[in-house]
Amino acid sequence: MPAVFSPDEPDEPEKPEDPDEGEPPGRIMSGEIAEQPAVLRRVVRDGAPRIREVAAAIAARSPRFVLLAARGTSDNAALYAKYLLEIRLGLPCGLASMSTTTAYGAKPDLTDVLVVTVSQSGGSPDLVASTRAARDAGAVTLAVTNSPDSPLAAVSEFHVDILAGPERALPATKTYTASLLALYLFVEGLGGGDGAAAGVLPDLAERILARRDEARTLASRYRFAERMVITSRGYGYPTAKEAALKLMETSYIPALAYSGADLLHGPLAMVDNISPVIAVVPDGKGGEALRPVLERLRGRGADLFVVGPAAEVETASAGFALPTDGVPEELQPVLEILPLQLLAYEVTIARGQDPDAPRALAKVTETH
Amino acid sequence: MPAVFSPDEPDEPEKPEDPDEGEPPGRIMSGEIAEQPAVLRRVVRDGAPRIREVAAAIAARSPRFVLLAARGTSDNAALYAKYLLEIRLGLPCGLASMSTTTAYGAKPDLTDVLVVTVSQSGGSPDLVASTRAARDAGAVTLAVTNSPDSPLAAVSEFHVDILAGPERALPATKTYTASLLALYLFVEGLGGGDGAAAGVLPDLAERILARRDEARTLASRYRFAERMVITSRGYGYPTAKEAALKLMETSYIPALAYSGADLLHGPLAMVDNISPVIAVVPDGKGGEALRPVLERLRGRGADLFVVGPAAEVETASAGFALPTDGVPEELQPVLEILPLQLLAYEVTIARGQDPDAPRALAKVTETH
Repeated sequence: MPAVFSPDEPDEPEKPEDPDEGEPPGRIMSGEIAEQPAVLRRVVRDGAPRIREVAAAIAARSPRFVLLAARGTSDNAALYAKYLLEIRLGLPCGLASMSTTTAYGAKPDLTDVLVVTVSQSGGSPDLVASTRAARDAGAVTLAVTNSPDSPLAAVSEFHVDILAGPERALPATKTYTASLLALYLFVEGLGGGDGAAAGVLPDLAERILARRDEARTLASRYRFAERMVITSRGYGYPTAKEAALKLMETSYIPALAYSGADLLHGPLAMVDNISPVIAVVPDGKGGEALRPVLERLRGRGADLFVVGPAAEVETASAGFALPTDGVPEELQPVLEILPLQLLAYEVTIARGQDPDAPRALAKVTETH
Repeated sequence: MPAVFSPDEPDEPEKPEDPDEGEPPGRIMSGEIAEQPAVLRRVVRDGAPRIREVAAAIAARSPRFVLLAARGTSDNAALYAKYLLEIRLGLPCGLASMSTTTAYGAKPDLTDVLVVTVSQSGGSPDLVASTRAARDAGAVTLAVTNSPDSPLAAVSEFHVDILAGPERALPATKTYTASLLALYLFVEGLGGGDGAAAGVLPDLAERILARRDEARTLASRYRFAERMVITSRGYGYPTAKEAALKLMETSYIPALAYSGADLLHGPLAMVDNISPVIAVVPDGKGGEALRPVLERLRGRGADLFVVGPAAEVETASAGFALPTDGVPEELQPVLEILPLQLLAYEVTIARGQDPDAPRALAKVTETH
């Protein structure tokens, strides 16, 4: 069982049990990053039929609004689902502010509302409490977790298992991409589709993860960075947020994620001082909407690293080219995050820290 | 007319016209910070009756779901309204991801949905376009702006004027507190209340703004800070986000805002390295929910500065005590931001920069 945080515990969590002591630091996180093609294959092959069943049962209830509840990495997966639901299905969505229920006792009327709670462990008390309250308030509730036996799955009317297998590393990687894929299949199923376009992902993920040396070069670029700005738009924005979280929780480099539009409304002033900017450029409408922001960043002399299609990488200071041909824009987030997970891992190693033992993190964070 | 940003303009915006050249830097921002008690008085006295009328007309339409659309400072005001709507009225809410409409052309069904767009200038093309699209899709639309003649007010079915008077400083201050107060009065009106509790705010704001020397001392504390974490929970969370934005756009100090719960899900790992933490502690349930986070931060030896009731300030390394007696928790955000605006101003002056001429900012940011 994973360690559970309580305020009385010491701040340095124990390193997860490691049968092979003496192995290099970060072996656990590195192994889980590498597992992702196999996990994605499992979701596509074994998970999809059940996800389609759940989606069909929920479609029959005709939800009119969707609320998404999650924290940390799962909150970035929830944001991805918000884009999918709004763009693909025209369903208005909101991200739940959990304290309105758990701290303030709000009693919303949730008739016709679908509440989707995303949580790797399914164990955080505030997520369980807010999901139970949502169900009592009339919502259709769906839990998306890696733990079919979790309290969250138990209180939810429907459950989708992301099939990522036990996650031992403290920084979540494989459960993020598995959640994205499961949410994609769910939303497609809700609209009556089969999500077959996702079939290309496992092989492409494998090709990307084989390019570790590129990530290592990138890590040497950021080894001494004091801070970083990560930006994107549309479907790529959750990737920017997740990359920032990953970098902060492993390397402790403060990484600020902004949608390109919000960057222009204030934080751009900071970019001169913080040279490095990473732009996640979707191959599609999100990338087009980001173009004026990239031009403005270039105009300010920002050091711009692009994760995206090869043509975009060529216009930047440097980049990591993604194979996007034949990958619909809404599926690209499953691939975009991979080089950025590698970057978080490699930059942490380069700084002499251990990605498997980040300060202050425990696998299940209990917030109330 | 304020300067309008276009990608072809030079990066350094012209300083707004200043009839008294030779005045000290930051005179415009400083003057607008000081105007706030008068602005709040005007909203309470002259604005409230009209806001109540608008609220009653919208209540008659019985919205079941609310979407809030805004950017930058106004987005933080919108987040405040989300807490109010959920907690006070039990209305489920979402913050709009504008690119779903403007970049991806999503066509949501917005029957029974109230769309509230908050914008100082009422001029940003994406806000105008997304509001027009929302109205076409069946939503009740309300614009909350400082510009009754703006394109946004014109495309919206209802309009509330925040009566802040022309805002010349690039970093928004008085339009933020005026938006909060107008949104409070609107939400109370939607629930059939008169919002009379807000009557105490103008005098309290005046007392807080008279304590500039405390803000100057605080500024000397952060003058050399390389980065900052700002945290809160519940009603105080929008304050944390707005304080971070204000600090970044004036002083260029990277300031990371997290809800206390999200801080424990990852970014806490960073806090050892970035000593200074500012906690906005509401006097009420938000403050109670934040308590375990504060204990955890203290346990990690963080340098903790508290903005909140005197009793909370006493337990921290330092703080700015707010008069919260008789101020309902949901109104405290109008006061909490004031010392943090002063901090952003004073720390920028201390660093030898000009708060009236932040790099890369223009008064109307045109995002599409």
